[in-house]
Amino acid sequence: MRTTVGIVGAGPAGLLLARLLDNEGVDSVVLESRDRAYVEQRQRAGILEQGTVDVLRDAGAGDRMDREGLRHDGIELRFGRRRHRIDLPALTGGRSVTVYAQTEVCKDLIALRLEGGGPLLFGARALAVEGAETDRPRVRYLHEGREELLECDYVVGCDGFRGVSREVFPPGAGRVFERTYPFAWLGILADVPPSHDELVYARHDRGFALLSMRSPTVSRLYLQVPGGTDVRAWSDGRIWDELERRLETDDDWRLRRGPVTAKSVTPMRSHVHEPMRHGRLFLAGDAAHIVPPTGAKGLNLAVGDVVTFARALAHLRGTGSAERLDAYSATCLRRVWQAERFSYEMTALLHRDPGATPFEDRIQLARLERITGSRPAEQDLAEGYAGFPLE
Amino acid sequence: MRTTVGIVGAGPAGLLLARLLDNEGVDSVVLESRDRAYVEQRQRAGILEQGTVDVLRDAGAGDRMDREGLRHDGIELRFGRRRHRIDLPALTGGRSVTVYAQTEVCKDLIALRLEGGGPLLFGARALAVEGAETDRPRVRYLHEGREELLECDYVVGCDGFRGVSREVFPPGAGRVFERTYPFAWLGILADVPPSHDELVYARHDRGFALLSMRSPTVSRLYLQVPGGTDVRAWSDGRIWDELERRLETDDDWRLRRGPVTAKSVTPMRSHVHEPMRHGRLFLAGDAAHIVPPTGAKGLNLAVGDVVTFARALAHLRGTGSAERLDAYSATCLRRVWQAERFSYEMTALLHRDPGATPFEDRIQLARLERITGSRPAEQDLAEGYAGFPLE
Repeated sequence: MRTTVGIVGAGPAGLLLARLLDNEGVDSVVLESRDRAYVEQRQRAGILEQGTVDVLRDAGAGDRMDREGLRHDGIELRFGRRRHRIDLPALTGGRSVTVYAQTEVCKDLIALRLEGGGPLLFGARALAVEGAETDRPRVRYLHEGREELLECDYVVGCDGFRGVSREVFPPGAGRVFERTYPFAWLGILADVPPSHDELVYARHDRGFALLSMRSPTVSRLYLQVPGGTDVRAWSDGRIWDELERRLETDDDWRLRRGPVTAKSVTPMRSHVHEPMRHGRLFLAGDAAHIVPPTGAKGLNLAVGDVVTFARALAHLRGTGSAERLDAYSATCLRRVWQAERFSYEMTALLHRDPGATPFEDRIQLARLERITGSRPAEQDLAEGYAGFPLE
Repeated sequence: MRTTVGIVGAGPAGLLLARLLDNEGVDSVVLESRDRAYVEQRQRAGILEQGTVDVLRDAGAGDRMDREGLRHDGIELRFGRRRHRIDLPALTGGRSVTVYAQTEVCKDLIALRLEGGGPLLFGARALAVEGAETDRPRVRYLHEGREELLECDYVVGCDGFRGVSREVFPPGAGRVFERTYPFAWLGILADVPPSHDELVYARHDRGFALLSMRSPTVSRLYLQVPGGTDVRAWSDGRIWDELERRLETDDDWRLRRGPVTAKSVTPMRSHVHEPMRHGRLFLAGDAAHIVPPTGAKGLNLAVGDVVTFARALAHLRGTGSAERLDAYSATCLRRVWQAERFSYEMTALLHRDPGATPFEDRIQLARLERITGSRPAEQDLAEGYAGFPLE
């Protein structure tokens, strides 16, 4: 098989890229190792930055998001029995975020891609990207028991942290920057209306907690737990009790409980692969970078990468200049490192690090005091939360 | 001897407090263990926040500062061969800082105190503060070979990190928060006009460097060195060479060299003693808190403490209410923790931590990029640098 852009992975990065290329009249093939049902059901992020919402809408993929997504104009910080609302539009010149699950974004993009008849192969497991340094890179993959070859002008690796795309970089051609956090998130989905109409980020002596939601009837809640925690050690009752403590239920506010429909532990990791390009292979999304979930940057960064690639390719086709394609890695990395910094700082701001000294605990509280008491500091946070602009 | 306020220590905190009390008609006695020449010569900080300048001027102690001090409207950040000026007044609603050495502030305040005839005893070494929990606290001290007793209504401990005042707190009545940094500052004074008209803070792969000044003819320069560095290992030539590298001399800018007149290594430490009051003993300045020198907050914090004390005492005398005096510790600590946070963050922003991972190095650079590329982030830094307001 032969195509202009071979896309490895049908997560939000790969699917959106296929859509953007479709809109530009550029042919592409998407290879996805899992089946459609799996892709449409896996639970991931759920907060879309303003810029992501705009991109999906402009790409003609925003109809259901506009109907069902929940626009949020603020988040709440809780610490030391205090509550402070960050008013996003007031602090960022009108920007907000939208609650709409990644899994719904994927469903919408899959439907659009299949409607258009564009190739999207499920159960097609990429084995290797070959010839990245030539003009004819290839993806070798396994589909219906047979090994196949996809010949491309460009390959975009959207196959996540454990994908094969990164293996293309010869020793010494890539460098990894990473951090593993000494804690994880225990997350639940529950069939109960959210107990607050906006997200609540709580810093508590017992650890971080987050009240979030997927829809007006489904709550998504998280607890900081030690790294390596076994989810079976946490009964539903224990989870609700702990959420109540950390979110500081009081006379004015109660946490609504409901049936827990999913429960899992997510490790926290920061990871950046530099550069994000090798020859004609371009990395996008989790294949190139991972952020801890605090601040919900992962999906939004992936969107930024594929928009940057699609624009650079359009620039090449329109002008004959490869300048923007050549700048792909540097352009993406500026935004990536700002998001990495933001996620790292927001994680440090709200979590209890088991190794923190009493002095560091006080510094953390002083930072929270500063953010809630100073407009510039609050604005710095709000701008990061609403999202860094695409270049 | 008997007085209303016994002041232990004739550093800037103790001397300014004596002046503020003089102006209010409250009698005080200042005890200083060293002799006058020593106090007037020891090299310390040299950057006065706008608020400190205002306090000194209002106290009638600003004449020479106004003539000889250098008003600075900006600082420069250097990193990765880039230069970025922080315009303080533009970012803080008109506030700036003034270069005027602490030792000059002390000279001015000593002269004023002695002119007024107010008791200021040099060579008077405090041995203990007694009876802090009674209405009649006393300072036992050694003067001219004899042990004496100073009976007071209040004692203010301005005797620094190693003074006796803190010993008053019985076990369990005080709590210390601290951090020791794995690096120190090697500082020099040099008889050469400053090579830049504003302070230059440089983050370099080889470590932090600071270009500062004491006057139009005297430069003050610092290098980050490992903790425990022996000053004798650094010849003048080696110091200038290293400064040149870290400050990134180029065609547009050269570092002027001159005779080095003083050279020393200062350890870097953060330290807070809570609370800042026990009975009728009040801690002020370094006796209660230490900041690393990055951002020059030490002297300014001491000024804030004694102003808070003087105002609280005036309030009690004017209204009969001890409310503000009772709130002394909490009032000071809010400002102290913001300054501790600021100093900690500015230290982390600019120094090379020998234990930092490559990921953390990139986060540091991303923070610098953010500060130089975003007005709110820049404003947050500028406000902290120009100083947190007194309550």
